[in-house]
Amino acid sequence: MPHDLYFPQDHLLALAQAAGTQLGLSPAHAQAIAQVVVAGQRDECHSHGLYRLLTVAQTIRAGKVRCDAVPVMTQRGRSIIRVDAQFGFSPLAFETGLPALVAAARENGLAALAINHCVHFTALWPEIEALTAHGLAALALTPSHAWVAPAGGKQPVFGTNPIAFGWPRPGPYPYVFDFATSAIARGDLELHRRAGTQLPAGCGVDAQGAPSRDPLEIMQGAMLTFGGHKGSALATMVELMAGALIGDWNSQQSLAHDAGAGAAPAHGELILAFDPVAFGNRPLPELQQMAESLFSSIEVQGARLPSQRRFAARERSAQAGIAVSAGLYAEIQALRSSP
Amino acid sequence: MPHDLYFPQDHLLALAQAAGTQLGLSPAHAQAIAQVVVAGQRDECHSHGLYRLLTVAQTIRAGKVRCDAVPVMTQRGRSIIRVDAQFGFSPLAFETGLPALVAAARENGLAALAINHCVHFTALWPEIEALTAHGLAALALTPSHAWVAPAGGKQPVFGTNPIAFGWPRPGPYPYVFDFATSAIARGDLELHRRAGTQLPAGCGVDAQGAPSRDPLEIMQGAMLTFGGHKGSALATMVELMAGALIGDWNSQQSLAHDAGAGAAPAHGELILAFDPVAFGNRPLPELQQMAESLFSSIEVQGARLPSQRRFAARERSAQAGIAVSAGLYAEIQALRSSP
Repeated sequence: MPHDLYFPQDHLLALAQAAGTQLGLSPAHAQAIAQVVVAGQRDECHSHGLYRLLTVAQTIRAGKVRCDAVPVMTQRGRSIIRVDAQFGFSPLAFETGLPALVAAARENGLAALAINHCVHFTALWPEIEALTAHGLAALALTPSHAWVAPAGGKQPVFGTNPIAFGWPRPGPYPYVFDFATSAIARGDLELHRRAGTQLPAGCGVDAQGAPSRDPLEIMQGAMLTFGGHKGSALATMVELMAGALIGDWNSQQSLAHDAGAGAAPAHGELILAFDPVAFGNRPLPELQQMAESLFSSIEVQGARLPSQRRFAARERSAQAGIAVSAGLYAEIQALRSSP
Repeated sequence: MPHDLYFPQDHLLALAQAAGTQLGLSPAHAQAIAQVVVAGQRDECHSHGLYRLLTVAQTIRAGKVRCDAVPVMTQRGRSIIRVDAQFGFSPLAFETGLPALVAAARENGLAALAINHCVHFTALWPEIEALTAHGLAALALTPSHAWVAPAGGKQPVFGTNPIAFGWPRPGPYPYVFDFATSAIARGDLELHRRAGTQLPAGCGVDAQGAPSRDPLEIMQGAMLTFGGHKGSALATMVELMAGALIGDWNSQQSLAHDAGAGAAPAHGELILAFDPVAFGNRPLPELQQMAESLFSSIEVQGARLPSQRRFAARERSAQAGIAVSAGLYAEIQALRSSP
């Protein structure tokens, strides 16, 4: 049984920030990254928790990120906010663009934040929740590294290409989902490889294109999208909307740039924000009530809304402190004190 | 073997328009509907071809549509075009809003068309192609009747809730997909019921929530989404974005309004348009070339892009005329001459 330690949020924020600074990040980047990894840890979303600081460290050591990049924001017309991350990590770029995105969505009913040239390792739900907190609906898309074959193919073209969406519910928690368009997450594939276990059927093909459940064979072949040709179409949409549309790299270009370094992907991201009051032409509570009626129809029959496990973990963390395994805590401590 | 007849497009447009007028539609509605059903027939997309005039007739006879509704367009801020279809069929509402949507997308980089209070029976790809023809990317969402249970549930909440997306390729044909978020189309379920055949596994549950492959049991129970909880999340997004966001009915309300009449669903639709030149900050051909490189990576390995079968059918129709089965042709002729 792994041994868990429990910490107040502020302690972990300070630890994560100190680790980031020690790794060479500017204070602004270290702080923005600390916020998202501690949020992941708080929600027991471990693949995007403090553990991700190891990805950050690996990416920095591989020389694949600018530790002191200062994101440059420009507004294109009234509704498009562009933030060039200058090959720095994405969280600071998102923070830089967020206020202008919210303002533009309020003013025009909808607006977009296009982040270019960022190094990306985070989940998308923290960004979605930052928008739903303002009473906006939001949709976010980003490519990754090319690990996933199109339906009917066997060679990697797509990244795990997450799609995240949120709707501002009354009360503390929004409706929010955030999922990979690959059949499983890349992290799960790596866990299976380390454990030497087989994957569920339908997650990948070997180098010859034959269905495989072996993680090593799939790494030499390709992962598959969820949902057959429909998931493959959605993965294509992510490449186009968060790639060609915003003039940025696709997942193949990101992987080529990585050149085997094992660093976080480098590409763009697209975030859309929608003001229900402007779209629905009536007060927000009235539109929210329409949505609540939908959610009730789902929950009354015992089906779950996405992210409920995360929100329950968030409640636990608020009560008892944020759990961190003793081993991971030691690794993050080591990052902080490494030369 | 069904016997096919071949007609020039203009002949079928005139026939479809005459049938619509005979059914009581205003000339503007009859013309807008003729355009979309003949486009479906031309592309051998038979579930949305001339056959759909029978749905139109059924909906009119059930008293569930206003045959002479005049769509009312208003602009909300700079980026939101609203068209109230006044409980008329949707194609005329889309035509009414299209020029303003294109203009707003060009001016602001992105824009939305929210259609309210429409009766909806068409595929979404004709609308997507109307936008890609202007060099825009586009995303369209609409609910339908509540036939589909959420993941983990057994009672219908969602419609078949299609998602359609398009990207403007150079050359005659865009990249475009248009799929139901249900595991199979409602029309396929009905075909299986009529034929007395079983469905593939995973398409539905019986009234007790047990997996079923029997079309009648599924009609008494519920259809399922594609892709498990991910498809279910996307179906929820469609209900929210093309429902609560725009202050319109969801699929449950549409089905309640139908009250067993078997008419086309009544609700809203959301169409988003994106100008790549504004987002990508460089000439369209350069951004298109980035997308073409992605498409090549898909096609070079023998995988297919969506809609290629439709485009091949369109070529055939241009050469040889549009094929209509003799039986369907007789049915449409009968609509035209019915009292």
